[in-house]
Amino acid sequence: MTVTQEAPAIGSVELYQQVQQYYARQMQLLDSGRVEEWAQTFTADGVFAANAHPEPTVGREAIAKVAGQVVADYNERRIQRRHWLGMVNIERQEGGSVFARCYALVFETPHGGQAYVKASTTCEDELVHEGGEWLVKHRLITRDDLI
Amino acid sequence: MTVTQEAPAIGSVELYQQVQQYYARQMQLLDSGRVEEWAQTFTADGVFAANAHPEPTVGREAIAKVAGQVVADYNERRIQRRHWLGMVNIERQEGGSVFARCYALVFETPHGGQAYVKASTTCEDELVHEGGEWLVKHRLITRDDLI
Amino acid sequence: MTVTQEAPAIGSVELYQQVQQYYARQMQLLDSGRVEEWAQTFTADGVFAANAHPEPTVGREAIAKVAGQVVADYNERRIQRRHWLGMVNIERQEGGSVFARCYALVFETPHGGQAYVKASTTCEDELVHEGGEWLVKHRLITRDDLI
Repeated sequence: MTVTQEAPAIGSVELYQQVQQYYARQMQLLDSGRVEEWAQTFTADGVFAANAHPEPTVGREAIAKVAGQVVADYNERRIQRRHWLGMVNIERQEGGSVFARCYALVFETPHGGQAYVKASTTCEDELVHEGGEWLVKHRLITRDDLI
Repeated sequence: MTVTQEAPAIGSVELYQQVQQYYARQMQLLDSGRVEEWAQTFTADGVFAANAHPEPTVGREAIAKVAGQVVADYNERRIQRRHWLGMVNIERQEGGSVFARCYALVFETPHGGQAYVKASTTCEDELVHEGGEWLVKHRLITRDDLI
Repeated sequence: MTVTQEAPAIGSVELYQQVQQYYARQMQLLDSGRVEEWAQTFTADGVFAANAHPEPTVGREAIAKVAGQVVADYNERRIQRRHWLGMVNIERQEGGSVFARCYALVFETPHGGQAYVKASTTCEDELVHEGGEWLVKHRLITRDDLI
């Protein structure tokens, strides 16, 4: 992904497009099992929190480790996951951060089986622009079945 | 959402991005039960028509009232709805209006239960630009199971 | 769709928006059964390959014919298909081609019945810019249940 070195302003078409492209690439990395590259899409001190988890996961190493365990489990069961992030609402900018709220769906397909919706969630991100690219500084995933 | 005061031209990247951002915000308002704000995303004389309804709903007050009844019903049953509008095709501009046709999916998740696809529909909008923002002047929702 | 005559550069917001709009229009044509227009969204020598098909379909005539047979079958069974292409990751440009990888979901709704996810797939496209519009030169659809 080619991005400008300067972060574009909120409300700008550049910001919206960059976030869409960033989300697409980020989730394709996770669904392809490339967990080290996935972890690099967070800041070094990035936080992954979820209402389904007792504690947030903090930092790239921990984020890669947890994702790797989940990927291994899915691989063993031969289930392909696909994360869809959409309905992206860029809400506000504060300091150097952009706050976006979107919906996230997880679809799963067992090998030789039928695809289905696994979960419907909301995704609330604090994004920062470092070294010419967007990174998640804080992500909160809220599963709809748990609210 | 920051938008320019002038409506961008059809085919422009600004128009496409603004419609995407507008749809995301609009449907997040509805799914959050903020029905008064949802109604404000229509023009004062906005029309909400659907092949599932005998009569269209006309005007912000009526739109808010109907949405409020549906939200109350969902809340009572503890089901979280999520509307996804996507595959946005901006078709043409006529007078001051932009005509867009997109797909809309409704996902539902019961509290403690499993997410599922509730309905697949098409959404045909006439959008107008008033006071620096996009508003629906006429929306037609066509449920795929009724065609 | 109004597009500029020159293909926009990779990483540009114009390219991303044009591909999104192109995908929306393209899949709406297929889902509406307009198979001749659908075939025109491929290059004259366009290739449609899929891990579910023994051989790729090559050229507009063949692409229209195959699509027409599938549409006739769906019409007879009174099932409405909807193709959602999303999570668009524009990966690279090489020569005059743009390479994009996205996710594609198929939703189906039987007349009078319940909508469901039919299939989850990835879509890998080589796109070229001819006569002021984007066309698929090569598409590979990989169904998640067959990998």
